[in-house]
Amino acid sequence: MKIEIRENDKVVIFGAGLVGSLLSILLSRKGFQVEIHEKRPDLRFKAYANLRSINLALSHRGWRILEEAGLADDLKKIALPMYGRLVHIPGKEAVFQPYGKSEQAIYSISRYKLNCFLLDKAEEEKNIKIYFESKAEKFAFDKSLAYVADIEGLRHRLEAKAFFGSDGAFSALRYEMMREDKFMYEQNYIEHGYKEFTIPPAPNGDWALRKDGLHIWPRKSFMMIALPNQDKTFTCTLFFPFEGKSSFSGIDSENEIKTFFEKEFPDLITLIPDYLSQYQNHPVASLVTIKCAPWNNRNFLLIGDAAHAIVPFYGQGMNAGFEDCRILMEHLQSAESWDGLFSQFYKNRRADADAISDLALENFIEMRDLISDPEFILKKKLESIIVSLGIENWIPQYTMVTFSDLPYSQAQERGHHQAFVLEQLRKLENWNDLEETEWAEKVAVHLEMLWP
Amino acid sequence: MKIEIRENDKVVIFGAGLVGSLLSILLSRKGFQVEIHEKRPDLRFKAYANLRSINLALSHRGWRILEEAGLADDLKKIALPMYGRLVHIPGKEAVFQPYGKSEQAIYSISRYKLNCFLLDKAEEEKNIKIYFESKAEKFAFDKSLAYVADIEGLRHRLEAKAFFGSDGAFSALRYEMMREDKFMYEQNYIEHGYKEFTIPPAPNGDWALRKDGLHIWPRKSFMMIALPNQDKTFTCTLFFPFEGKSSFSGIDSENEIKTFFEKEFPDLITLIPDYLSQYQNHPVASLVTIKCAPWNNRNFLLIGDAAHAIVPFYGQGMNAGFEDCRILMEHLQSAESWDGLFSQFYKNRRADADAISDLALENFIEMRDLISDPEFILKKKLESIIVSLGIENWIPQYTMVTFSDLPYSQAQERGHHQAFVLEQLRKLENWNDLEETEWAEKVAVHLEMLWP
Repeated sequence: MKIEIRENDKVVIFGAGLVGSLLSILLSRKGFQVEIHEKRPDLRFKAYANLRSINLALSHRGWRILEEAGLADDLKKIALPMYGRLVHIPGKEAVFQPYGKSEQAIYSISRYKLNCFLLDKAEEEKNIKIYFESKAEKFAFDKSLAYVADIEGLRHRLEAKAFFGSDGAFSALRYEMMREDKFMYEQNYIEHGYKEFTIPPAPNGDWALRKDGLHIWPRKSFMMIALPNQDKTFTCTLFFPFEGKSSFSGIDSENEIKTFFEKEFPDLITLIPDYLSQYQNHPVASLVTIKCAPWNNRNFLLIGDAAHAIVPFYGQGMNAGFEDCRILMEHLQSAESWDGLFSQFYKNRRADADAISDLALENFIEMRDLISDPEFILKKKLESIIVSLGIENWIPQYTMVTFSDLPYSQAQERGHHQAFVLEQLRKLENWNDLEETEWAEKVAVHLEMLWP
Repeated sequence: MKIEIRENDKVVIFGAGLVGSLLSILLSRKGFQVEIHEKRPDLRFKAYANLRSINLALSHRGWRILEEAGLADDLKKIALPMYGRLVHIPGKEAVFQPYGKSEQAIYSISRYKLNCFLLDKAEEEKNIKIYFESKAEKFAFDKSLAYVADIEGLRHRLEAKAFFGSDGAFSALRYEMMREDKFMYEQNYIEHGYKEFTIPPAPNGDWALRKDGLHIWPRKSFMMIALPNQDKTFTCTLFFPFEGKSSFSGIDSENEIKTFFEKEFPDLITLIPDYLSQYQNHPVASLVTIKCAPWNNRNFLLIGDAAHAIVPFYGQGMNAGFEDCRILMEHLQSAESWDGLFSQFYKNRRADADAISDLALENFIEMRDLISDPEFILKKKLESIIVSLGIENWIPQYTMVTFSDLPYSQAQERGHHQAFVLEQLRKLENWNDLEETEWAEKVAVHLEMLWP
């Protein structure tokens, strides 16, 4: 059964989160009649007790589609650029490691504010209707129907030409697709959970730390990070194992918490005067990776986290979801039917979602472990020489992922190959014995052999 | 919250399949009050259109607990022993490969008859009540409650000291546990599906093939197997890819089916006169592997396929489920609380479930591919010499899995190590150039080096 794409087609989006609200705007501008059904109340008018304050890092892939949609300029006003990592080692000054070229930055933005912004923009479109507290309950793939329950529990039938599940990591649509034959599914929680802290402004009212970078306190088996907010606070996140000696369950009493912070984060004790009560009162959340296949069933499609939830360590979860939207809209231009579009989109995009999922897990190790490792720093230095030599086709993996549109799967493949070359290069000389002036020359000579 | 184990405790089992009905008997004999809730009607009184006729191979692990429960003697009467594989290669006589020592056999038994038998036995116990068409709808882990809907859709509250989900690969209890934080879950379908055929009795009224073995037609990328039934028929199963040239979707027209059978299964054309209409009319089913963790949540436990659904290629799905029951009952003897018991059982058993899951996937390759491979036959011959030499600690993997109680994880580890030794052994001589009389001597000499 091919369901043709026609002007004015009614389409339904489940979930008014970041991806759902952006997608609604893009579809409405193509002339479709869009209905969004969101199970939660409107977050713009309701304060949630457990609303996650988590900050997001918006980078090139996200900005690109926001620019295409004419939303970027307004958003830049509520985002703070971070040009590199600021690495904190006990007893030392924080070290700045740039992310890329001097103008390249990722942007700290509040998840809450971004969602409000996109919902406001969606409501300005004439073809979009948003139903809050409308919960998807049942999907009839073969009849092109879905059923939602309203706040009173009354059930409504939704008939549409296409249905989008942008309903997040715990997608109701995906749970239903899971029961269909031959649906592949995998959910895995990592051993680390996270807890958030807030660094208040300094006594003089300014940010308490440099605001132009992403702060990291790498501690091998765990780490703390901090991203700047517009109100001159920072949101800190402690990524810490659930179990073991140094873990959320191991560090529990007042004494244990104090000893732990004194040893690991002495600078944060000053910056967060009430760190003790924040540790004791803030909840611990878990981190999940979800992979599934296929993302489409007839004219129903999973998109964003619903299709591929990933860990946050490459800062790509939202960016990947926004890029989904861009790629879907590109396929739409030549598509003839909704089910054909969805199948084509899934086939094109799945390998990239798998790639960023794996890269995000790998980057956790890099962030908490390698970033302060002499071996890692040596290789980064070698890589920066390669980049300065202008070697064709060599782009650092972080740059490919964060500051380019290269499909994630290609970034992964090329990144792994470059890592292999760097590993060989490192072995070919005792770099520390050389004068720094000799490095570029040596690198150039060796590279000819290793990187044809 | 520890829920102590007391005499007369009420326990609820979801699912009256093989594992659920056996488990009910074992628990009832320990003095507990058992309620079984099964969502389907009583299969003893109702004919199902799509009842799977699939045969099972009952082996040592299954028999052991059935013997302990005093059920084995009656069951032996409806089971047929199979002492080895009968391998069919086009144009050749079938070759018999024994499974183990001459008295060692696996037993072909009808899934339907076995289930009826266990339900009848369960109903004879005074402490067991079985509710059919009673569908689990909701579980309250923290309140020790579950809710079922009866055939009219009326909802009932079940209060019990312990709850068992033996509700199979698509377990309702597991779907609910899946939504709890930090639950690991994985479902993967293999590329092959299966279709069943029936070989009728021969014109003289007897079995059309030898009934004392499991027949295999290995064809590399696919295979057919046949198990004998008491009514002198055989149940054949074709394991075939879903997609590709040689596949269910590739072989579809009358002509394609005929050409395919003439080339691959010429003997079956004679044995199954209506193979064409059977191929066209019988459904194709898929094969899933499910892994999850943990299997317990407070006093709720997943058991059997609900906890670890595996592919059927080692004939261990039911045997593993029955062994679950034995091991659970052994832990019960020293357990003090239901939740403690469940946690202990899960921790003890998980690695073994993972092991048999992987072994079952590996055995598919062996069955369809290697069994007719000269290399495979050479290694089997070397192994049979090792066994005849009485080398201490060397037990063929198939024997460890099928004819022993050794934990699956140990069978897997030792099996992999033995496979490595066989691989080395094969390389040390050009065995085909040797006289057969020299083999044992050579094997003995090499083994001293390889198998200390």
